[in-house]
Amino acid sequence: MTSSKKDVIIIGGGISGMSAAKLLQEQGLDVLVVEARDRLGGRTFTQVDSTVGYVDLGGSYVGPTQNRLLRMAKELGVENYKIQEVERLVWVDNQKCYPFTGTWPRFWNPLVNIDLNNAIREIDRLGDMIPVDAPWDAPNAEELDSMTMKEWIDKTCWTESTRRFLTMCCSFMLAAEPAELSCLFYCFHAKKAAIHVLHHQGPAEDGAEERKFVGGSQQLSIKMGERVGKDNIKLESPVSKIEQSEEKVVVQTINGDVFEAKYVIMAMAPSMTQRIHYSPPLPPRRNQLIARAPVGSVIKCMVYYDRQWWKDRDFCGSTFNVDPASPMVYSLDDTKPDGSFPALICFVAANKAREFCGISKEERRDRLCKAYFNAFNGAEEALHPVNYVEKNWMAEQYSGGCYTATYGPGVLTQLGKELRKPFGRLYFAGTETATHWAGYMEGGIQAGERACREVLHRMGKIAENEVWQDEPESKDVPALPFESTFFERNAPSVPGLLKFLARTAIASTAAGLLIAWRLKNK
Amino acid sequence: MTSSKKDVIIIGGGISGMSAAKLLQEQGLDVLVVEARDRLGGRTFTQVDSTVGYVDLGGSYVGPTQNRLLRMAKELGVENYKIQEVERLVWVDNQKCYPFTGTWPRFWNPLVNIDLNNAIREIDRLGDMIPVDAPWDAPNAEELDSMTMKEWIDKTCWTESTRRFLTMCCSFMLAAEPAELSCLFYCFHAKKAAIHVLHHQGPAEDGAEERKFVGGSQQLSIKMGERVGKDNIKLESPVSKIEQSEEKVVVQTINGDVFEAKYVIMAMAPSMTQRIHYSPPLPPRRNQLIARAPVGSVIKCMVYYDRQWWKDRDFCGSTFNVDPASPMVYSLDDTKPDGSFPALICFVAANKAREFCGISKEERRDRLCKAYFNAFNGAEEALHPVNYVEKNWMAEQYSGGCYTATYGPGVLTQLGKELRKPFGRLYFAGTETATHWAGYMEGGIQAGERACREVLHRMGKIAENEVWQDEPESKDVPALPFESTFFERNAPSVPGLLKFLARTAIASTAAGLLIAWRLKNK
Repeated sequence: MTSSKKDVIIIGGGISGMSAAKLLQEQGLDVLVVEARDRLGGRTFTQVDSTVGYVDLGGSYVGPTQNRLLRMAKELGVENYKIQEVERLVWVDNQKCYPFTGTWPRFWNPLVNIDLNNAIREIDRLGDMIPVDAPWDAPNAEELDSMTMKEWIDKTCWTESTRRFLTMCCSFMLAAEPAELSCLFYCFHAKKAAIHVLHHQGPAEDGAEERKFVGGSQQLSIKMGERVGKDNIKLESPVSKIEQSEEKVVVQTINGDVFEAKYVIMAMAPSMTQRIHYSPPLPPRRNQLIARAPVGSVIKCMVYYDRQWWKDRDFCGSTFNVDPASPMVYSLDDTKPDGSFPALICFVAANKAREFCGISKEERRDRLCKAYFNAFNGAEEALHPVNYVEKNWMAEQYSGGCYTATYGPGVLTQLGKELRKPFGRLYFAGTETATHWAGYMEGGIQAGERACREVLHRMGKIAENEVWQDEPESKDVPALPFESTFFERNAPSVPGLLKFLARTAIASTAAGLLIAWRLKNK
Repeated sequence: MTSSKKDVIIIGGGISGMSAAKLLQEQGLDVLVVEARDRLGGRTFTQVDSTVGYVDLGGSYVGPTQNRLLRMAKELGVENYKIQEVERLVWVDNQKCYPFTGTWPRFWNPLVNIDLNNAIREIDRLGDMIPVDAPWDAPNAEELDSMTMKEWIDKTCWTESTRRFLTMCCSFMLAAEPAELSCLFYCFHAKKAAIHVLHHQGPAEDGAEERKFVGGSQQLSIKMGERVGKDNIKLESPVSKIEQSEEKVVVQTINGDVFEAKYVIMAMAPSMTQRIHYSPPLPPRRNQLIARAPVGSVIKCMVYYDRQWWKDRDFCGSTFNVDPASPMVYSLDDTKPDGSFPALICFVAANKAREFCGISKEERRDRLCKAYFNAFNGAEEALHPVNYVEKNWMAEQYSGGCYTATYGPGVLTQLGKELRKPFGRLYFAGTETATHWAGYMEGGIQAGERACREVLHRMGKIAENEVWQDEPESKDVPALPFESTFFERNAPSVPGLLKFLARTAIASTAAGLLIAWRLKNK
């Protein structure tokens, strides 16, 4: 049993916890990071070996408007590179390949085009009404939070293609099925960037998947760890108990170690705080919240090939699998920027991921190769991988899944206010508590630094209005202004079009009758 | 650090764990019960003191078809008594009192009567299609599990009164809002008794709340504990870690105690198993399940008076509060059978409970008294309580809420199969794993005894077909046959009635025209 007295103990050595620890230490405080795993990084985890070079098995991407992440990476000397999407993307449905260029495909059926456009525009519109720091205060919060995203999709969309696309968006963005998600939560999440939604989330230029870090994203946590110092970090130390009094907090691990501090920052997904026994117990509403915030279900899978054969066929590697029969949801080229380790990365998410748990690793690989074969228009090369790497985040007892907490109906409006509310000497970080890019690395840093400043304020070191801080835009990766097209802004919805057509038909008939009558009576 | 080697360790000293422990010991095995709290009983908890006599703050009621519970109570010498509902019940809406007799009120608006009848009949019909041991195998499981109960209510019900009534049923039966519940789960839960649903759940004769135990329900666990023996029970021992190998399981508590056994039975709500660290970790799908099984939100409140004044006004004390403005959901007379400690008991559940956390105990009492004042038609006596006792189950870190685990859309069909699936040397009891009256004390006993027999089978002591055992019907409390009325079976739904009326109108008009034509042409 070791004992140690610190100013602040940070539980969780992911990107959020490490951001808090780093900033606290820079302010001259004595910190200790206590991490359950044998590594830092949390939901970012980079495998490094000779078979793959390096590969991010968890959170990986960075894009414009993620300014804290870009700032932190720059400070730590971690460079990024742009994902190349020069060749055609693919929309996969009914096990067929529909290549396209640009952000979204255009469909031969004009109803699908206006339906898809209308759905995205509606999600934007709803997002615009939701305050990022208090989604429960949106004017229509109760209504949106009493319906699932599936219900909203069924009500809003007139075409099967649009419904399948939005289902894919839920799987891809939150690793959950539409029926599991509150509509309020989905629109809040889609709004995360505080800019237009899906346009900045797609893989394309200016999206959330625009870039990756050279050497992998886990480096951020590792390099922050180097600054914080080995002696201030305890790995393989799952916390089993937190006991707080008026003077201090005592943190106990399952190894029997005991640490003391003035304050504790919990930097993990809300549901993970259930691994800990509390004395005194958590307040009733927080106790209810943490049981209602499951993390998504996802397996990240990398198939390696001897070369980027998809490029020969004028495909960039990106596929949107709206096809329920496809095991994957979304894929991207994952070849290193220097062309080494040619690979395709894909996300198997939500129900597809849960079902994928039931088969062997070899079968998973084979099914994915078959899916690439279909997606790339019968490309024989897809069936001959040279290596396969996967990471099933559902199995991780210290993540509970990936990427982030998801909320069903009722949770945000009834319990959301508890997310960031300190409990005695406990403060809450973790990307789920962010107001900007919650669920992403960017949100993790915002949350960690905010929690750090909450503690600094509590200690009397900074003023209350310094707790929340805006971040200046990255000069290296500025966001492009989002410019919607005339079509995107003005195209009608399907019911709008039908109404218009009906009115036109009535008006034309009336006009025709009038003209006929005038002619007759001339 | 104490160490001890046992055949089976049971984690959780509630009614399910104690049933397992008792049966295992009767079979000659060496058992140890490890319980987090300083008492046995889990979600049953009886306060005993001079101000209340005794009062059940948790699970309390017993009724026909709960034959295991009746058998166990008889064996342990715990008697029961019938709740008296001689006088009028009350339906409360718009802060007004609508007294009635019988199971359901009859409304002045005939549409409400047929709408309510149709909704209950539909839930029965859906329940009939759901296998009790595998709701995920119901023919329409996917469809029902992709919709919330709110969605189903909105689609099925034509009148606001019926919608409010079913909302109240969700709150009362599961301490959750309709939008939080999968329709499949609700219908499965309502079917629990494997008999007709709501008819056996109401407070009336032959329902789930027909009886209570003299002296309180916690006695069952305490008396089972006496049989198991003090030395075989460790209280105040929250488990922090379970480590299993091919030979044994090692259980560690936050006090540093270490216990060894051949097998472990986990007898708690699925979400509570998240308090524990596992080595090896739980399988991915179980890991996902336990994060998606929140226990309901409820506060049980008892208001004591100097006499049963409601009886003077020809009210039995039972109220159905469909009124969103009422803080409570459901109330019952809780006076002791000998007439002592006159009291009304009520359930504050779901959103009402979460909102109730934000005010003081005095304010809660005052609001409830005001609600009784309204419910009992302006009874001044309601405002003059002599004592107030409450139990907020949301605050209990070792229950996570009450009464039972609830499931949103997708959970049962995707992850439900994990509920009872053993993991290595770990077996799962707890009322949530039952196939009969899951979520009730009866289900707890079924689950505990089944888990016990699973271990016995694993040890080669019984055959596989002996694991699941039917229970003969209690001779003392037999179930009445459920007899539906002609109206209940044959009344149309609202759309059915409208269709009938439209057809009748068309047919009458046609007949009229035909007769007129015939007369004219005579």
